[in-house]
Amino acid sequence: MSRVARYGKLIAQPGRGRELAGLLLTAAARLEGDPRCELYLVNLQADAPDTVWVTELWRDQDALDATLEEIKGSAETAAAMRLVAGAEMIELDLLGGKGPTGQVP
Amino acid sequence: MSRVARYGKLIAQPGRGRELAGLLLTAAARLEGDPRCELYLVNLQADAPDTVWVTELWRDQDALDATLEEIKGSAETAAAMRLVAGAEMIELDLLGGKGPTGQVP
Repeated sequence: MSRVARYGKLIAQPGRGRELAGLLLTAAARLEGDPRCELYLVNLQADAPDTVWVTELWRDQDALDATLEEIKGSAETAAAMRLVAGAEMIELDLLGGKGPTGQVP
Repeated sequence: MSRVARYGKLIAQPGRGRELAGLLLTAAARLEGDPRCELYLVNLQADAPDTVWVTELWRDQDALDATLEEIKGSAETAAAMRLVAGAEMIELDLLGGKGPTGQVP
């Protein structure tokens, strides 16, 4: 299976962008030792601080699905969802470049 | 100085997305050993194959400026520019997460 690359765009309730990003950073910390996740970078859009962008790279679709299943229904996920006013996912085909782009063994 | 994170969105001339991405991959290969650039990932948007997204992470603004200065006026840059019908840059504040997020020494 091939890797899954995507940008998650989350628009927070007004004034809550940094708070939402903080919850996602907590989630990211749990991924630190998880080889299924290669990138999970949490950003605020510079000119729109209630817009959070997450750069995601997963080993494969199974890895992403399993992670989503694990966090589903948690208190942290519910807290984050309450701060989200809108969401969009940009699905990507990663072709290569500089970064964690090597083949999965 | 703090790092520079951004997504570059390039819309290619119709049917030329993969060709444009190929030119960017060539540029990325030159960055492989360059510590000023931490990420330069070239993607096609899954549902819009003439839309190229580049995930960029640079050590600081000086690093980015110097690189842009180096490639300015090259034949490769001119070839890429000819394939671009539209462009947008989403400037980000990288807060952290999993990936190359550590402090620059």
